[in-house]
Amino acid sequence: MSEPIKFYFDFSSPYGYFAALRIDELAASFDREVEWHPMMLGAAMKVTGAQPLAEVPIKGDYCNNDWERLARFMEVPWTLPDPFPIGTLAASRAFYWLDDQDSGLAKRFAEAAFDTYFGQGRDITAAEVVAEIAAPLGVDADALLAAVQNPAIKQRLKDETTKAINDGVFGSPFFLIDGEPFWGADRLWMIRRWLKSGGW
Amino acid sequence: MSEPIKFYFDFSSPYGYFAALRIDELAASFDREVEWHPMMLGAAMKVTGAQPLAEVPIKGDYCNNDWERLARFMEVPWTLPDPFPIGTLAASRAFYWLDDQDSGLAKRFAEAAFDTYFGQGRDITAAEVVAEIAAPLGVDADALLAAVQNPAIKQRLKDETTKAINDGVFGSPFFLIDGEPFWGADRLWMIRRWLKSGGW
Repeated sequence: MSEPIKFYFDFSSPYGYFAALRIDELAASFDREVEWHPMMLGAAMKVTGAQPLAEVPIKGDYCNNDWERLARFMEVPWTLPDPFPIGTLAASRAFYWLDDQDSGLAKRFAEAAFDTYFGQGRDITAAEVVAEIAAPLGVDADALLAAVQNPAIKQRLKDETTKAINDGVFGSPFFLIDGEPFWGADRLWMIRRWLKSGGW
Repeated sequence: MSEPIKFYFDFSSPYGYFAALRIDELAASFDREVEWHPMMLGAAMKVTGAQPLAEVPIKGDYCNNDWERLARFMEVPWTLPDPFPIGTLAASRAFYWLDDQDSGLAKRFAEAAFDTYFGQGRDITAAEVVAEIAAPLGVDADALLAAVQNPAIKQRLKDETTKAINDGVFGSPFFLIDGEPFWGADRLWMIRRWLKSGGW
């Protein structure tokens, strides 16, 4: 059995959202699992000196148009949220807390969080909103609100982010497949090609 | 007859090289012409605050691997040149000088320059090397060497670069199709989709 594909993203990353809608299906067609790893992209961007796309002159306008066009081409929901970008500490911590209990549940939560933010355009910064997103999946709201303030869970997210950066992750989405790095929602075709040829 | 597709690139851009190997064929399958526009990417990067890929921590290593992999997947020649990146004033000026005489000749020169730099890994900074590249196409070396020092040709390249930036171009490769912007060698599939649907 091959190692799972590692999928790194930030909940505030549009291209992360688009990749999240496709990566599991793509991997499954090659009998591969996907391990989801939300991270604090801001920490990685400090290393590379990158700026948030929306704040870069010219590029920001380009990206707004590109996201809308990509959603249209992929036939998936898209709303440019306001505010954007946002801090995603609560959503990311909630993910790892759920992941320790049931990784399938954590993934369903992540999908719902992405859909709430980029599909519906609703701000998911607040822990209370994160708890609301998780509730329909059977997650107790009070337990989640306590978890996102739990020092061990806070540390877990920091550790995951540090480890990702040490493993060479600098953007969202980012994939590591048996150590081979792929950056960007545009690289799904290369991932398919890589898996098809058995990693060559 | 539709307007030509505008293709912007820097001769020192690997992703520009990869796109140059495909864009004319793609456009031709939709009965579209392509107008090539070399530019001084550094000037555009000043506007967006971007750094040369090779100089960015972590990202530089990623890109080296990505270029090699992309060349393998596309089955095209690839050598990471040394030095890289380089100044491309001579090649870009020579292009516009040729373009004023014969746009087909200018394009064949550009293809040869890209192949020399990224296919064979030979430094194309010097005007003498640029003249050598153009010679097999029937271009007089002395005339070319004079042209790249001609104030009008120098100004032409500056004007082209300013115009490109004003039109929203901030990277290489970059495409404008009836005003719609596409950035990156990874976006050829979107260009195909866009042309196929008649610009939607």
